[in-house]
Amino acid sequence: MPIVVQKYGGTSVADPDRIKAVADRIAAGHAAGNQLVVVVSAMGDTTDELLDLASRVSVSPPQRELDMLLTAGERISMALLAMALSERGVPAVSYTGSQAGILTDSTHGEARITRITGERVRESLEEGKVVIVAGFQGVDPESKEITTLGRGGSDATAVALAAALGADSVEIYTDVEGVFTADPRIVADARKLDEVPYDEMLELSAGGAGVLMTRSVEFGRRFDVPINVRSSFSEDVGTWVREASMEQAIVSGIAHDRSEAKVTVNRVPDRPGVAAALFGPLARAGVNVDMIVQNVSHAGTTDISFTVPRANVDDAERIAKQVSDGIGAGSVDVDPDIAKVSVVGAGMKSQPGVAARMFETLAEAGINIEMISTSAIRISCVVRADQIEEAVRVLHDAFDPPVITEEPAP
Amino acid sequence: MPIVVQKYGGTSVADPDRIKAVADRIAAGHAAGNQLVVVVSAMGDTTDELLDLASRVSVSPPQRELDMLLTAGERISMALLAMALSERGVPAVSYTGSQAGILTDSTHGEARITRITGERVRESLEEGKVVIVAGFQGVDPESKEITTLGRGGSDATAVALAAALGADSVEIYTDVEGVFTADPRIVADARKLDEVPYDEMLELSAGGAGVLMTRSVEFGRRFDVPINVRSSFSEDVGTWVREASMEQAIVSGIAHDRSEAKVTVNRVPDRPGVAAALFGPLARAGVNVDMIVQNVSHAGTTDISFTVPRANVDDAERIAKQVSDGIGAGSVDVDPDIAKVSVVGAGMKSQPGVAARMFETLAEAGINIEMISTSAIRISCVVRADQIEEAVRVLHDAFDPPVITEEPAP
Repeated sequence: MPIVVQKYGGTSVADPDRIKAVADRIAAGHAAGNQLVVVVSAMGDTTDELLDLASRVSVSPPQRELDMLLTAGERISMALLAMALSERGVPAVSYTGSQAGILTDSTHGEARITRITGERVRESLEEGKVVIVAGFQGVDPESKEITTLGRGGSDATAVALAAALGADSVEIYTDVEGVFTADPRIVADARKLDEVPYDEMLELSAGGAGVLMTRSVEFGRRFDVPINVRSSFSEDVGTWVREASMEQAIVSGIAHDRSEAKVTVNRVPDRPGVAAALFGPLARAGVNVDMIVQNVSHAGTTDISFTVPRANVDDAERIAKQVSDGIGAGSVDVDPDIAKVSVVGAGMKSQPGVAARMFETLAEAGINIEMISTSAIRISCVVRADQIEEAVRVLHDAFDPPVITEEPAP
Repeated sequence: MPIVVQKYGGTSVADPDRIKAVADRIAAGHAAGNQLVVVVSAMGDTTDELLDLASRVSVSPPQRELDMLLTAGERISMALLAMALSERGVPAVSYTGSQAGILTDSTHGEARITRITGERVRESLEEGKVVIVAGFQGVDPESKEITTLGRGGSDATAVALAAALGADSVEIYTDVEGVFTADPRIVADARKLDEVPYDEMLELSAGGAGVLMTRSVEFGRRFDVPINVRSSFSEDVGTWVREASMEQAIVSGIAHDRSEAKVTVNRVPDRPGVAAALFGPLARAGVNVDMIVQNVSHAGTTDISFTVPRANVDDAERIAKQVSDGIGAGSVDVDPDIAKVSVVGAGMKSQPGVAARMFETLAEAGINIEMISTSAIRISCVVRADQIEEAVRVLHDAFDPPVITEEPAP
């Protein structure tokens, strides 16, 4: 019997009625003869509500206790889903990350999955049960401490479980129909993509497409587990993220990201080691730096700009100022009113004109480009935040067809 | 350093402000040089809210999944309390029942504690940390399944932990000041008792005094752990439940219980084996029968009445009817409008007049007695539910002084 791993996000299990709808879908899959492993997130806003409670008792709660707190969320949704299945006559059992053998390192709040034992999962599958597994959580086998996997952790749980169990594929159920050529809320004629290669999906996710986090796509690529992103509210087949087929679109999607801020360190002495002096401390402080741009030097100094998640901008500013003082650089500017737009497509490797066309298109729309960063299959530009929707629209028009993609939900 | 075990009930940790107040109290105890182990219940109405969610996805949820669901409740409160302590500079760590080594049998929903290993608790105490332990929950070491302990489970966790750790005593913090001579909401001059012996507390608890469940008192008596019942909202010293001192009051308290219903099986053939035929099936169905009264026989038949928790009355009625048909008895009557009043006191063993005085007192108040049951240190009467408050008041007056006790909260 084929093993199918499904993952349902928070909106798919937001209340008892939705949990019952998910149970109906699972019951049908079980009746069709599949061995089903179902990974669930916490219900709806549960995680935010728990974080709010934490903030009301502590300004800086210990991450170990935050993990203890947050893992209660999936415990609730997984038990309710097992009950709803049992009510339908489908034998089911729920396991926490620890019980399912999701082993991680010891980094509370951002743990990495190191191994999946999955013994109890396999045993229960052999007994004919649907196995519900708590997403987002695991256990450090050394300390026996409970950990969480950070953003996108439930998707990572599902893809890693699929790899460990030798499943044919993993189905990620969410509140959108799949991966789109651009955000349908911004671009009226954005189209759902039937298929996206792993590497393009990685760039789209890194560019702000929230439907899949990069780490899940990385898992899928590394273990060659095809990922089917689809809606839990419809029967649409969704989007398949998998190995590239021979023919590739020049541009498969436009991604955008409004979650970052720009930090600029002015008049940095142009000598070896200054970049390391700046980005070393940032990395050690856990600040996730995205784009980095260093301009050419004038009179022995240069400006270095970088983007960070807005949540980390205070840390980034503080560290940048310390470093700036230490290396004799100038002032540090922070600009939160930026956004990033990315054009992604494996085909652009062999089509040198894509970057030029992107810059021209933005220029014609009167949109100024503040930073540029490129990879082999992606070009990203930082623009003013209030121009991002216009940027996405004009780029979608310019590269369509062949078309394009983007995050349908923040 | 003395080890002190404290337990805080759901109302004591009902919201972030109350959790902070509890943290203040614990911080003071830690500063005073105690090694503190703190058992917590789920916040306020959390357990009821989780049960409501369960009822909305399943008519009869599997008990294994209910345990998985409900144990999320203490996970939340314990993590929040650890955070609040950390915020106060007090090193703290929270452990689930499983992590704390609370080992139980396999009876989901009503598990019995079989052993407490407590290794991680001891280690953390030695590191100078306050240890927060989830009440109400444990783990079956054979199956590795998570279990819950049923009603009063958090108190049982606390008392058993105190015994396992060799603590001098256990402090049960609740929303009332201690054990009272009668319910202060009914008897205006009810007094808080400074001390109650274990065996009288057992009878008071069995008689309806909700402040402590019988199983916690049993643990305290078996392992000789004095229990201090006190309010988390005041500095009052509360009530000590411990070994009896030499001098004992004739009557130490009046307990009452409105949670039961009466079932009567009429015209039961008066022959050996009929009681077993009735109460065997009830016990196997998990119906907790309290009082049983069988009257003398007339014309070869007798009536058997018994009381059960109102939640079990449908099961009890169904089983009683089946049995009645099987043994050729008559109709089965169910009466939910009853209540039980109990006079408790170790001194009554040597004072034969207590029962007579109780019956006279009720008669003078025009209160009819429908069932009577006695133990060495307790006399209980079933009366009409709408007369129970009057019964408590007149009995409190009659036996005061020396006085009396009762449940201050349902």
